Amino acid sequence: MIKLDFKKGDGLLPAIAQDYKTNEILMLGYINEESWAETQKSGYATYWSRSRNELWKKGDTSGNLQEIKEILVDCDNDTVIFKINQIGDAACHKGYRSCFFRNVQEEVVSDLIFDPKVVYKK
Amino acid sequence: MIKLDFKKGDGLLPAIAQDYKTNEILMLGYINEESWAETQKSGYATYWSRSRNELWKKGDTSGNLQEIKEILVDCDNDTVIFKINQIGDAACHKGYRSCFFRNVQEEVVSDLIFDPKVVYKK
Repeated sequence: MIKLDFKKGDGLLPAIAQDYKTNEILMLGYINEESWAETQKSGYATYWSRSRNELWKKGDTSGNLQEIKEILVDCDNDTVIFKINQIGDAACHKGYRSCFFRNVQEEVVSDLIFDPKVVYKK
Repeated sequence: MIKLDFKKGDGLLPAIAQDYKTNEILMLGYINEESWAETQKSGYATYWSRSRNELWKKGDTSGNLQEIKEILVDCDNDTVIFKINQIGDAACHKGYRSCFFRNVQEEVVSDLIFDPKVVYKK
């Protein structure tokens, strides 16, 4: 098992969630040692929320969990790819399939899957 | 044009290089404002090297430049995807097509394209 270099990035490393079938990139989150261990133990992508400063099992509120199919590690052991099955088809809290739903010219390039007002009841 | 939130991550944001045809993830680098401007001006992926603390036009030594085809931005404006045409077919300094050439069980999952000893003359 590859050991990640958590000294980089002050204990937080980027984790890219990628659709295991289409290779579409759905989001990027951050992991610390605790969330890395929890991801592997549970089989579901678990990040560290930088805004809430807590463990964040993706989909806990929306139901849109990310089932881990495979994990890839980069040459420096400081970035990972979670190859996932995205439950509910959407990763973005704004309701889009991918958090990368805009190009730099602000055109929408991803599908809107759900209405965030309904799902998050805000 | 979307304005990135460089206040996040102390001025350095992750940039994911993804093959524009196959959606394969080839590497993750970091950009600061200077490298972000240079990428858009030059049309080639230009990162900020955290180890050398300098602007890093990917491929300057190896010739394996990354031609920008499209840029996607995430919902928080703090991560980008460079959809690229990878010149020379390999992004990793270890000679593999992708820096993510191993899974977490340490099995090789990417193609070896070149011999780094020859290319970098080390």
